[in-house]
Amino acid sequence: MPPEIPATGLQLQSTIRSDATLELALAEVPVPEPGEGEVLVRVEAAPINPSDMGLVFGPADMTTARQGGTPERPVVTADVPERLLESVRARLDQALPCGNEGAGVVVKAGSSDAAQALLGKTVAILGGAMYAQYRCLPAFLCLALPEGTLPSEGASCFVNPLTALGMVETMKLEGHEALVHTAAASNLGQMLVKLCNADGVPLVNIVRKAGQVELLRGLGAKHVCNSSEPSFETDLVEALVETGATLAFDATGGGKLASQILTGMEKALSRSATEYARYGSETHKQVYVYGSLDRTPTQLERNYGAAWGVGGWLLPLFLKRIGPAGGQKLRERVAREIKTTFASHYTKEISLAEALELDSIASYGRQATGAKVLINPHKPGR
Amino acid sequence: MPPEIPATGLQLQSTIRSDATLELALAEVPVPEPGEGEVLVRVEAAPINPSDMGLVFGPADMTTARQGGTPERPVVTADVPERLLESVRARLDQALPCGNEGAGVVVKAGSSDAAQALLGKTVAILGGAMYAQYRCLPAFLCLALPEGTLPSEGASCFVNPLTALGMVETMKLEGHEALVHTAAASNLGQMLVKLCNADGVPLVNIVRKAGQVELLRGLGAKHVCNSSEPSFETDLVEALVETGATLAFDATGGGKLASQILTGMEKALSRSATEYARYGSETHKQVYVYGSLDRTPTQLERNYGAAWGVGGWLLPLFLKRIGPAGGQKLRERVAREIKTTFASHYTKEISLAEALELDSIASYGRQATGAKVLINPHKPGR
Repeated sequence: MPPEIPATGLQLQSTIRSDATLELALAEVPVPEPGEGEVLVRVEAAPINPSDMGLVFGPADMTTARQGGTPERPVVTADVPERLLESVRARLDQALPCGNEGAGVVVKAGSSDAAQALLGKTVAILGGAMYAQYRCLPAFLCLALPEGTLPSEGASCFVNPLTALGMVETMKLEGHEALVHTAAASNLGQMLVKLCNADGVPLVNIVRKAGQVELLRGLGAKHVCNSSEPSFETDLVEALVETGATLAFDATGGGKLASQILTGMEKALSRSATEYARYGSETHKQVYVYGSLDRTPTQLERNYGAAWGVGGWLLPLFLKRIGPAGGQKLRERVAREIKTTFASHYTKEISLAEALELDSIASYGRQATGAKVLINPHKPGR
Repeated sequence: MPPEIPATGLQLQSTIRSDATLELALAEVPVPEPGEGEVLVRVEAAPINPSDMGLVFGPADMTTARQGGTPERPVVTADVPERLLESVRARLDQALPCGNEGAGVVVKAGSSDAAQALLGKTVAILGGAMYAQYRCLPAFLCLALPEGTLPSEGASCFVNPLTALGMVETMKLEGHEALVHTAAASNLGQMLVKLCNADGVPLVNIVRKAGQVELLRGLGAKHVCNSSEPSFETDLVEALVETGATLAFDATGGGKLASQILTGMEKALSRSATEYARYGSETHKQVYVYGSLDRTPTQLERNYGAAWGVGGWLLPLFLKRIGPAGGQKLRERVAREIKTTFASHYTKEISLAEALELDSIASYGRQATGAKVLINPHKPGR
């Protein structure tokens, strides 16, 4: 028998006020009645991804965070540096629901065939406002998971799997034949290792610790370069010569890594050059920055000729580029391989209230490689 | 009566030796007999462009330059830092002729109709090895200048005019509608002002001195921002709002200017935004670095969402992109407008020997905005 549907449910909301404070709180919001083409999903699992952090914390200085409220309804307040307030002008004084993706069970459906077909099914959703007990949305936004898939298994169907697939697709679209990936021991990085192995795409993994080298080799990674080793630069060039990679995806963003990769690519290309190319190799070398683990400025040495580019890469913009049909093809592959290629692992499952404890925030806010947290909005208080 | 053709002519050559020294010297080389489809050009004017510097000086440290040889045949020697030697491995111990472009008179022609048609004509050439008294090359590489054009007027037909046209063409190819240009008071920058005025392309000029603001306004520039003014950032945003420019060409390369431009573009775009875009504007903002007046690393703040790119831009790669027919169309326009839109101005005309005096090198090596030097290979010694 399906659980009874309450009149209201909890939802995690983030508000940045004009007085330069951030407030995170749990609001009790009405559980909506699904319209004709809509379904109501009881959300049972929603991951905390790095890409959720921007909306949750904004530009607040979380070292100033204070705990308020009650254990069941915690409230977190933090200061936003005045000079950064302008950058979030458009969201001031609005309570914004958070959580890009998640999974749950359809507990009520509108009258349309598409909605009715999902009743009782476990579905994955990329729709925002997923750090909530219930989410009502159009049926076509739901990805029905294969029979026997738990919500916790399907919670991360979109952000990481589609990003990994997006990297490989971007490689093909832009005429490259191999990839470089930084922060490669991350959940996403491990997924990319499996995907590239499955698809025969040569991949150069860059990590920062010896243990991460072992981890990735254990998953079948062939090229793993440890940026903490003194031999990093030459190791990287060797791997670039062997793979021919001229496209990199960089999760760190700041510092010199993107530039080091371009320098390595140019060195690898010049190995095969037969005569002096006065302006450097004519082969285009590209680094896409898709994260900002290092918030310092990106530093580009520009010692790699003229055929280079560095730019931002964002999943929604990539999905726009390939169009709805292209995106649907990728989503269907994710659903088929959610327990294998695209499986995610979590270090912790927490409740909505626990997500607003300062200790938790300090932990998931760190974005430590491999530490991934799942929110279960129906797990009791704390 | 045409001047007599000698058996040999002078040619400026640059050699980087394995012992980590650069040598610049004048070699006496045979004047070739043109083949069937070739012409022999008596070079009378060849500009020193920033893009020539790489081949002439390589990575040598010119503060170590020593003068040798004789006044008529000067030799300049300088040290190359050992760590940079690897970057020029492919050119070691080869005497390379220099000079990308120039103009002169066809004094001898092969038997083909195309070659014969050029006999006695003043032609412009982009072919390398132009810092020489004579240059033999295929007729199809010559751009015949309109009757009454002096070699000194046609010497800079390619690098600057095609770069200016390339910027406007790149803008159209990549879907932008206005341009930003830095170091905008340069010879190229002045040309771009005239070109954009002629073609109705909104242009934001960035300069560093008050005098340069006046200079460009005098040429009809509408938007000129002085980066030395305290109001620079807000002036820039205003100009970006008015023009809608989302593409910039940056001659400086190093430092924070490219990033400041992207920040300004994002601010300009967010002015018209109606709701909070959590990942920033979706409009792609691009800066192409086409020079390196500032050799320090490029520093990117990445506070402009995800739809941004920074990359190298190089004329030969652009010409490859648009293909031979596209390039020919641009070249013909340059020839037609060489005395108006694409006119260049020089501060000095020097001989080949004078080009190898330490004083001259210090002067043209500085690449001061607006100071452009023309080599006349037939001007007597010194």
